[in-house]
Amino acid sequence: MTHSAVDVIAAKRDGHRLSDAQIDWVVAAYTRGDVADEQMSALAMAILLNGMDDAETARWTLAMIESGERLALPDVGRPLVDKHSTGGVGDKLTLPLAPLVAACGAAVPQLSGRGLGHTGGTLDKLEAIPGWRAELSTEEIAAQLAEVGAVVCATTPALAPADRRLYALRDVTGTVPSIPLIASSIMSKKIAEGTDGLVLDVKVGSGAFMRTREAAQELARRMVAIGAAEGLPTRALLTDMSVPLGRAVGNALEVAEAVEVLRGGGPPDVVELTLALAHAMLGLAGIDPEADVDPAEVLASGRAFEVWERMIAAQGGDPGAPLPTAAHVETVDAPASGVLTRLDALAVGTAAWRLGAGRARKEHPVQAAAGVRLLAGIGDEVRAGEPLLELHTDTPDAVPGARAALDDGLAIGDEPAERGPLLLDEVRA
Amino acid sequence: MTHSAVDVIAAKRDGHRLSDAQIDWVVAAYTRGDVADEQMSALAMAILLNGMDDAETARWTLAMIESGERLALPDVGRPLVDKHSTGGVGDKLTLPLAPLVAACGAAVPQLSGRGLGHTGGTLDKLEAIPGWRAELSTEEIAAQLAEVGAVVCATTPALAPADRRLYALRDVTGTVPSIPLIASSIMSKKIAEGTDGLVLDVKVGSGAFMRTREAAQELARRMVAIGAAEGLPTRALLTDMSVPLGRAVGNALEVAEAVEVLRGGGPPDVVELTLALAHAMLGLAGIDPEADVDPAEVLASGRAFEVWERMIAAQGGDPGAPLPTAAHVETVDAPASGVLTRLDALAVGTAAWRLGAGRARKEHPVQAAAGVRLLAGIGDEVRAGEPLLELHTDTPDAVPGARAALDDGLAIGDEPAERGPLLLDEVRA
Repeated sequence: MTHSAVDVIAAKRDGHRLSDAQIDWVVAAYTRGDVADEQMSALAMAILLNGMDDAETARWTLAMIESGERLALPDVGRPLVDKHSTGGVGDKLTLPLAPLVAACGAAVPQLSGRGLGHTGGTLDKLEAIPGWRAELSTEEIAAQLAEVGAVVCATTPALAPADRRLYALRDVTGTVPSIPLIASSIMSKKIAEGTDGLVLDVKVGSGAFMRTREAAQELARRMVAIGAAEGLPTRALLTDMSVPLGRAVGNALEVAEAVEVLRGGGPPDVVELTLALAHAMLGLAGIDPEADVDPAEVLASGRAFEVWERMIAAQGGDPGAPLPTAAHVETVDAPASGVLTRLDALAVGTAAWRLGAGRARKEHPVQAAAGVRLLAGIGDEVRAGEPLLELHTDTPDAVPGARAALDDGLAIGDEPAERGPLLLDEVRA
Repeated sequence: MTHSAVDVIAAKRDGHRLSDAQIDWVVAAYTRGDVADEQMSALAMAILLNGMDDAETARWTLAMIESGERLALPDVGRPLVDKHSTGGVGDKLTLPLAPLVAACGAAVPQLSGRGLGHTGGTLDKLEAIPGWRAELSTEEIAAQLAEVGAVVCATTPALAPADRRLYALRDVTGTVPSIPLIASSIMSKKIAEGTDGLVLDVKVGSGAFMRTREAAQELARRMVAIGAAEGLPTRALLTDMSVPLGRAVGNALEVAEAVEVLRGGGPPDVVELTLALAHAMLGLAGIDPEADVDPAEVLASGRAFEVWERMIAAQGGDPGAPLPTAAHVETVDAPASGVLTRLDALAVGTAAWRLGAGRARKEHPVQAAAGVRLLAGIGDEVRAGEPLLELHTDTPDAVPGARAALDDGLAIGDEPAERGPLLLDEVRA
């Protein structure tokens, strides 16, 4: 059967299901350049507005995977399990989590991307470590998984190349916020990576891509359904992102906080979510966190930290080297005495981004040392004129913009306040 | 205020109205190349699915006009009035109509396009006349209007260039069937042309772009509303296109039929619609077809034919020269005796197109002599084995495809049948 781009676009425009053959054809033709960007963007808008059902979305995901290669990892002697976060402010969880899960007996092959906008990217954070490099060959990934048990590195261009091109197109054509397309984009890369199990951390709240619980649940449900259709055991946790995670937002600042957690300390919210995700990952890897190994104990014992040091060193990083510090640090003081009742994730994320921690366009560099350090959390007593948070940057011109971003993001009141629950829901196949 | 393409796309994607400033910006930025085709096609799909109201559509039309020039016609001493048809099978009405209206005292500046698909273009038809040329300068158009009173020629590249580019983009991105975009595309060119009044012939039925009366009414209402918003008096007639108009479909064949009409003969349906459109045009031009001049009398008297000869000669054509004839003519015979009950416009249009009368892509040539000549109409008695219609082509290989297109388009029955009314409705501001 022959297809034309206009026929496929018109089918979705008119509210029909796309057949497997239509999806396979249009993605393959886009990959080889026979379907033009202006045709794919019209199709993406039609998908955004008219939807795709679970079967279409699974097939779309498969077509994206088939546009490239699957990572050929040899048996490394341990179950492979990965985690993906939809992105949040202060979300450095991969940094303690990957070595922790490895220290518990699974292997974590996390191929990751760089950040865009107010949520940072894991690679940007790790690149704050002197010497650390993100680009590894397949052979290096396999060797590190076997020897260390954890690798966090850049995704390779051969994995789901059509998805990469489509994502860049969606970014400039207003077609990002389609749940089926977001779900298939995430899952195509994870399935191509070859993990045996996947835990999704779907963030909900002002600092997350999904602002509402309903949208986050739908995204989680979609991704778990794709995992089921493609034979990848997948579980999703819905977690709160209305408040930043931990006390540090920014690349080097977050690495330092992750190291605190790996040394048995760190902010309780970061520890709590790290352990929740570790439990879910180990469960998928067939390791019983109750009977076999207790992640909390592994974290406290320093065994996770040892894996961290080996993981960083294996990629050229010096885990003992001092982290970069910012040329300019100034404090934002509490405007009144009372209880901190509001600490908005989007406001803090935007401030850190403006200070240089994030990028507005994907070709921009980030500042390793820029960011925000929170000196108080929700429910803490603060006193007028005393420091509430620190702004770190190499470009002091950025400070007024960062302060402006924080304006509506902070509030001090008279009543006691406490942070809501971190773990909101769980979605399984 | 600054704008970005993504913001404008996202506004329409999310179901909002576009502001005048957003419309002006996005069309101007598209014209100068700052908004890319892939962004415009996503916006077009969002407009197709989420609509534009009358005020948005009028502003969009204005922005398309402002992307280029308005034709600078001097006062030619007569009111200017034009007609636009949405396209139908055998629709040669412009050919008798323009000289007829000129003979009645108005001037007709019809800038026209070439045909695409199963409905022919007026320029393609006139180009069947030896020597006739479609491209005129603005000075030539003005001189011919003053001297002859009628000009049918190619639109100039300076009129609504953004619309031309957008139309080509919509053609390949499945975004043609948006009523606001169709309405603004037609009206932007007619308003830029500088006519003082406009009659729209909105075709309804299998051979028309609008298959249903509701869709045709909506398109007519939209175009009349744009005319009102932009100060161009506009009326629309809804006319039947379930059956071909007249007995000839194809370029030279239709010119010959138009000449019959101009000589006071021709098929009754062509005469009826020509006169209905002439009445509407003269009404807009302030000429009372009852009191001042009777178009039927002007047609019968040969005065319209005299204008036709001058109009053709002014553009280099020889109105007396023999028209091209096809290398191959064969008949399709009636398969049974009885009454012709079905003669489907789309089937006949597709057959003519396959014979070479139309083009599949805009760069393709057309055959001047190709087409279909109908030997019977709805309600006529036919006898088994006697000719029902003729197929004309220079490429006999095309005949089987043309015959196949006719398969379901013809039916012979036992009961009397008659063609339904030609004039279905009228829309005024």
